[in-house]
Order: sequence, then C-alpha cells, then structure tokens
Amino acid sequence: MHKPSATGLLPHTDAALPWPADPVPATGGEVMSDAEFFDWLAGRQRKHAQQVRPIPFAELSGWDFARDTGNLQHRSGRFYSVQGLRVRSDGPVPEWTQPIICQPEIGILGLAVREINGVTHCLMQAKSEPGNLNGVQLSPTVQATKSNYSRVHGGSAVPYLDCFLRPDPRRHRVLADTLQSEQGSWFHRKRNRNMVVEVGPEVEAGEDFCWLSLRQVNSFLRVEDLLNMDTRTVLSCMPDRLHGAGTAVASGGGSRRGLHSDTEIRSWITGRRSEREVSATLLPLREVEGRGWHRWDDRISHERGLFFSIIAVDVSSSRREVPAWSQPLLQPHGIGVLALLVKRFDGVLHALVRAHAEPGHLDVVELAPTVQCTPENYAHLPAEHQPRFLDVVRESGPERTLFDTVLSEEGGRFHHARNRYLIIEVDEDFPTTTTEDYRWMTLGQLTGLLEHSHYLNVQARTLVAAMRTLPEAGDADADHR
Amino acid sequence: MHKPSATGLLPHTDAALPWPADPVPATGGEVMSDAEFFDWLAGRQRKHAQQVRPIPFAELSGWDFARDTGNLQHRSGRFYSVQGLRVRSDGPVPEWTQPIICQPEIGILGLAVREINGVTHCLMQAKSEPGNLNGVQLSPTVQATKSNYSRVHGGSAVPYLDCFLRPDPRRHRVLADTLQSEQGSWFHRKRNRNMVVEVGPEVEAGEDFCWLSLRQVNSFLRVEDLLNMDTRTVLSCMPDRLHGAGTAVASGGGSRRGLHSDTEIRSWITGRRSEREVSATLLPLREVEGRGWHRWDDRISHERGLFFSIIAVDVSSSRREVPAWSQPLLQPHGIGVLALLVKRFDGVLHALVRAHAEPGHLDVVELAPTVQCTPENYAHLPAEHQPRFLDVVRESGPERTLFDTVLSEEGGRFHHARNRYLIIEVDEDFPTTTTEDYRWMTLGQLTGLLEHSHYLNVQARTLVAAMRTLPEAGDADADHR
Repeated sequence: MHKPSATGLLPHTDAALPWPADPVPATGGEVMSDAEFFDWLAGRQRKHAQQVRPIPFAELSGWDFARDTGNLQHRSGRFYSVQGLRVRSDGPVPEWTQPIICQPEIGILGLAVREINGVTHCLMQAKSEPGNLNGVQLSPTVQATKSNYSRVHGGSAVPYLDCFLRPDPRRHRVLADTLQSEQGSWFHRKRNRNMVVEVGPEVEAGEDFCWLSLRQVNSFLRVEDLLNMDTRTVLSCMPDRLHGAGTAVASGGGSRRGLHSDTEIRSWITGRRSEREVSATLLPLREVEGRGWHRWDDRISHERGLFFSIIAVDVSSSRREVPAWSQPLLQPHGIGVLALLVKRFDGVLHALVRAHAEPGHLDVVELAPTVQCTPENYAHLPAEHQPRFLDVVRESGPERTLFDTVLSEEGGRFHHARNRYLIIEVDEDFPTTTTEDYRWMTLGQLTGLLEHSHYLNVQARTLVAAMRTLPEAGDADADHR
Repeated sequence: MHKPSATGLLPHTDAALPWPADPVPATGGEVMSDAEFFDWLAGRQRKHAQQVRPIPFAELSGWDFARDTGNLQHRSGRFYSVQGLRVRSDGPVPEWTQPIICQPEIGILGLAVREINGVTHCLMQAKSEPGNLNGVQLSPTVQATKSNYSRVHGGSAVPYLDCFLRPDPRRHRVLADTLQSEQGSWFHRKRNRNMVVEVGPEVEAGEDFCWLSLRQVNSFLRVEDLLNMDTRTVLSCMPDRLHGAGTAVASGGGSRRGLHSDTEIRSWITGRRSEREVSATLLPLREVEGRGWHRWDDRISHERGLFFSIIAVDVSSSRREVPAWSQPLLQPHGIGVLALLVKRFDGVLHALVRAHAEPGHLDVVELAPTVQCTPENYAHLPAEHQPRFLDVVRESGPERTLFDTVLSEEGGRFHHARNRYLIIEVDEDFPTTTTEDYRWMTLGQLTGLLEHSHYLNVQARTLVAAMRTLPEAGDADADHR
C-alpha cells in the first residue's frame, strides 16, 4: 500500500545530509564548533541506536483494541489512543471518517536558553524516537507528556523539568509560553505547552545535552531530519529580539509596514473561524472500519492506499538498562509538501498564509502554509482539483527557492513522517490580491500571533522558524533587483 | 423552588432606576440628550411589549424532547438545544452532571460607531427579549445568530448586517473583531463574533435604533437592566483610544507599569490551562435525569432547588404583525454576585482576576472576576467553603464601592437572569501576593487580551467595560489619600 514518492517536484535527494551546506565557523562565541557538534551527535546516535520492527497488532504489549469500541488503547488508559473521527465539512469533501490519535494530556516542550560568551545559546537534547528515520534527532531541553513528568508509571525523572514546570523568578525568566496545536489531520485536539526559559549559569549540559548557539540551531534547520518537530515549534515561539541583526527578522519585524493592519488580520481570522462549518465527532474506531478503512493483522489502512496507516512497532535497544517496548504509530503515505510563498511589498518580506480548517484543531481553523498537501493523495485527480498554488511551487526554479529541506515530524507518534519544507519567492507580477482563504502577512505579524496560542498550525510554525533564517531583506532585495 | 434572594450583601434595591445617578448633559455633541433618550426608550417599551407566560413543556410549539436522547430540541434541528453534560474536574467537586444549552452556531454581535459632532457615537437598538425582566433593553446594532441572518426559516432581513458580514473597505473600518465565549456553566461552547465597525455618514438610525455617544453608553452601564449582555461584551472589546481622557483608560492604559509583564500574564494563563484537568462530555439529557436533576411537566430542576431550572415560555405581543411563539429558557435561581477587587500599585489601577475553569468553555479556563458566584448555592455550606473573597465584597462599605449595578444576562436564552456587578477598591494592606488562580492586571493588559479571542469570560468583560468608566486614577487617588 505504501507507494513510492512521486511528488513531481524538483529533483531532491532523500538521503540526510551529514552537514549544513554552509557550516558556521566556531568563531562567534559558540561553546562547540559545528564539527565538534556533529562528532558528538554521531556518538549519541551510536549510544541510542534502537531496533524498530513492525509487528502485528496482536504482538503489542500493553495495548489492546477495546472490546466495545474497537479503539486501540493502552491498558492503563494513559498515553494516547487511536479512535475514529467523523468529519462534516462545508469544504469540497462534505463528510468522511478516519482514524485519529487522541492524546488529551498537555505536554511540555521546553527550551532553556542562556547567554554564553555574549551569544544566545540553546540547550539541545539528542533524543531517539522510534518513528524517526534516522534514530536520534535534536529535541528541545524538555519534551515530556504529563504521564512522563508526573511519572505515573515509574520511569526516571525528566532532566531540567523544574525550569519549566516551576520556574523560579530569581533564576529563571520565561520568554515564551503558549499552547500550540499539532497536526490537525492526525491528532484530535492535541496541543503542547511551548516554552522558552532563560536560565542562569548554574544550568549545565548533562549527558545527551549540548549548548548550541541560536545561530547554529537556525543553520541546522537546513540539515535534513536533524531538528525534530518539537524543536522547530518551540523555536518558532522564540521572541524576535533573541535573533538579532542580519536575518529576515531585522527587516520583517514590527508590523507597521504590513499590507494589512494587525486588526485586519485578526478580523480575517475571526471571520474564517466564524464562517467555516466543520464539525468533528469522535467515534468508536470500529465504526470507521468498513467506511473506506480496513483493519488487517498489522495495519489499519485506507482502501485506496492513500493518507496513512496505523501500524504497530516493537522497539528494542542493545543497552541492557533500556527495556524493550511496543506501541502503535501513524505511518503517513508519501512525503508532504509544505511551502510558503513569499514576496516583498515595499521591501518588506510577506508570506502568503492560508486560513485552513483541520478537523483535529480545537478551533478548527488555524493559519497554514500556502501549500500543505501530500501530492500522492491528489495524483488521481484532474488539474482543477490539485491543491492551490502547488503548480507555482513545482514550477519555481532554484533561484527562487530560499529554503528547501526535508524534515521529520514527531517520531514518538508517527513512523517516518517526513515533509519537504519550502520557501519560494514569487515573481513581482504574482497577484497581491488574495481570495478569502489567503492573506499576505509580515514576519513581524506572524511572530506577534505566536505570542498567543492556536493561531499558526505546526507546519506554518516550522516555516516561520525557517523564514527567520533568511538573509536580511535588504540583501536579498539587491539580488533580485 | 425559586427562592427569594438572600445574598447577604449591602442593602440594594432591585427596582430599575429610571435614570443614571449623574445624567450627562446634552452639551457634549450628543445627538440626543439623556432625557430625549429615556422618552424614546419608553416609547419602544410600549411598542414592543411582550406577554411572556411559563407553560408546560407539552405546550411548546416546534420543540420536543427527542425520543432517543431526551434532548429538548427544535424540530428543524436549528436554533439551540438542551442536552446533558458530564463534568470531571480536579476541583472541589470531582464529578457532576447538569443540563446545558448547546448552540454551535456563531452569531454576530456588531456595534456600528461613527463620529458625529466630533464625538464617537454608537448605533444602539431597542430590543425586546422574552427573558428580560423589563422587556426592552439596549442591544448592539446587530445581534443575530447564523440562523437569523442566513434566514433559513424566513423572517425579515437583519438591518445593518452587511456592515459586519461584508464590510466594504471604502466605507467601513473594522476596529474590533474577535470570538468571545458566553456563560460557561450554562452554554456548551457558545461563542459569538464581537465586532465594532466604524461606518460613514450614510448609516442612519432606523426605527428602533438610536445614536448615543460613547460617553452616554458608558454612563448607562450604571442603569439597572438597561445595556443588555451583548452590548456590554461588544463594548468591552472596543479599542481604548475611542474612550479618551478623564477615565480610568487614560491612566490604566498601556501595560508598562503593570505588576506583571504581559509575557508573565500569558505564561500564567497557559500554565493554568495546562494544569487544570477538567473534561466535559455531552450526554443525552435523559441521562442527567435522576442524577440530581428531575424533569417535571413544566421544568427540569435540581433536587435541592439550586443552580437553575429549564423552563418553557409562550411569547405573544399585542401587535398583529408579530406572531406568537414558544421556546425553552434557562432560569437561574438567585442573583449572582460578580465582583472585581481593584487596587492601585504605583498609582496604576489593577484588577484581581481569576483563572477560572468552566466546563462549557472551549479551552475550559478563562479569566473571570475576582468573585463569581450565586451566594444561595453556597448558603448551606460552612464558612470555609464559601467562595473566596466573597467576604471582602460583603464587608466593603459604600466608600470603597466604585461600581454597583444589577444587570441582565442574555434574554433570548435566560429567564430573568440578573447579576449584581461590583467593583470594590480594597485597602492598601490587602495582600499583593496571590495564589495560583489569581493575578493583578492593569486595565491596559485586560484590554490587550481583548484584542484576542477567549481570554476573558463574559462576566469579566462586563466588568472591564465598567472599569473603563471609573474616574481617572489620579482623581480617585486624591480621594483616598
């Protein structure tokens, strides 16, 4: 069922690059040079190697299909479960059902930052997740569900948790703290608390942790499958002032020169939330079976092989102190394309965002990238039903491509979920006027919305983080004029 | 079951005052003097007099208890329904069930404003609602559910709707546009779109409408049962700059001098939303019966006579062109007390707000007044279980009472729902430190949050509108020092 990728986009290698295209020299006050970091990371990869093996559902340990509902759930009732969802929508598909992951607990994604040698550094963690293509990726300092950190099922203490759960005003300063959604097509109302906390010199990097300068973290966004989804979302919530000059932040910060005022933008979002009629109701997973979805011994899949499957994996490690476990995962079919079209108006970089309804979001509509799709899911449809603006992305040459990296989504719930993130600068003759679902916004306006919860979806948040790493508008301007 | 009020508060007349204590002279550019307005209002009262008569459920026309669920609903499936709700909470009551009103449609509450004679005026509507104690109250320009304005069931066009539904950038300027919640104990996830739109001179006051200056509207907040709930919530969302000098806005606006930074306030809200565990699940109304609630011929009531009842009313008018109808209403038992404690820090007025979990809110926790309760519901409990700070409200003398008015809630869904709104200035020795559920915030900070959806609950919004009408902090300071 899992078809090979056929996005029709620019040729692109799926192999992870071991190195950023333009490594940062360790002359900017970094604790660790890029070379030292990649050596260290390779060591973490070896130490935390996991064997992940797909298994039939019957071999899951601790997980069952409930007798009454057929929901796939843990015997403890904690962690997460796979249930059914019925969606009724005023969009092109008026009704459908699908499996969906339910995880009502709000976890913490916390990034500790601290000034070292006059430069902002971030405390990163090398973390292995069973769904990661490549084992270890870089996570924020803390990445913990409530079940984790309240240790309902034993387990060891979460390092650095207190900086986020109980920040001490004498030693910690909270710089960002919002609730943000995750994939609204795969999760039912999942959100996490995204926090950035400035800590003091008493906080040191333990085993599996390292201090990287914010400039390094930003440059590593361009390395495939290196910064995990949780790092990217927390990074997007970081206040502008930590980023400094020389990047798009300096020219796109502040909202005065936006094509629309902040009030107009908020009114547009309120209007879309009021007008879209999308209702999503949880169903027993059993009721989804037979309505386009089928349960096999080892997967629940759509009859046309599209969208995703629910699978089960067994996870083990060569280290004796780490016990083996098994769990269900959601396996997307195909690599998604997440693209932000950008354009300068009066020299200020604007991104074309979409007010997008996703059934799993608490308030249904959040702002998404210009293009958010998995092209395979549309391959059988005629041109007029292809995702809007996908053709612009397909036809853009490398000179217009400001960012182009394949990155992984949440390896604790998804199996090899990868998306190609792109920022494409459109021509000057690209229309300024937009239809009701799209608006041009400055980076400053996007950052302003990220001071609050639930405005930008998780895909858009990665692209905002990527947008901040673009060269200053003035420089790029010069290239294109 | 409906017991007489016994709040134990200061003596207070429930009779509506026909006049504000300090009438505004018509010398400030008002289109209509206060005297002219009250004459006009009396005429509207006579014209729109309704006869509202409680009836048994069996006499409801168009409404039924559904056979399978027992839900009380309209045969068309539109409007609203009464269903059951099961709440599980980490609060003092771990689990309960209750009836609740479900109204998934998002309506529009729109206020048109325009400068006349150099003064901001608001286009108010004299509107009769069956649940109002006194028939006609002042509503915003537009107060319409989606069923109303899409005219699914016929009915006449909603005047002025286009200013809000399809604002024309050449003639209309949107000043505020957010989604805001309504009573989270009585409504399941109801919210309305609160809009303020500046219109041009072509917009004139039709029959049942009048232009009042913002200063008059603010002063009428102190008249009992005059500004309806929808007016108050829209008023709270109005940008500060329209209010001008001489009020608390001038001294409390801007957030620089707050006891806490904006980031700290947002982090506190995020923390409370993350930590509270309150789940609310809709149930068939039938399953609520027998669990503390009983259905009689003419009401669904709690076995101890507390909280509220669901009743049915027949509504008729002496005017032949208005057909009679019937509908269910929620009848609260007792008059609620909604009090904001305020205190000056460094001369800046702060209000003590509470992060309050209400099961009907989309994200459960919103900011509420310091005290929000119906004292009757606690009368049988010992002192230690009385609502926090209710004693401070009870013991405050008139010299500390900056605002004290009984106002009505939504007369289209509630029967004689009235709350006593108070702003009490506490002593200098009142503690600055707060427990986890409370924070001191400036008016500027509260207004900043009202630029976004779902931060302040509907009761707090009325008190923010009231707070804006207080004399400038400097003046009041002089009185108290």
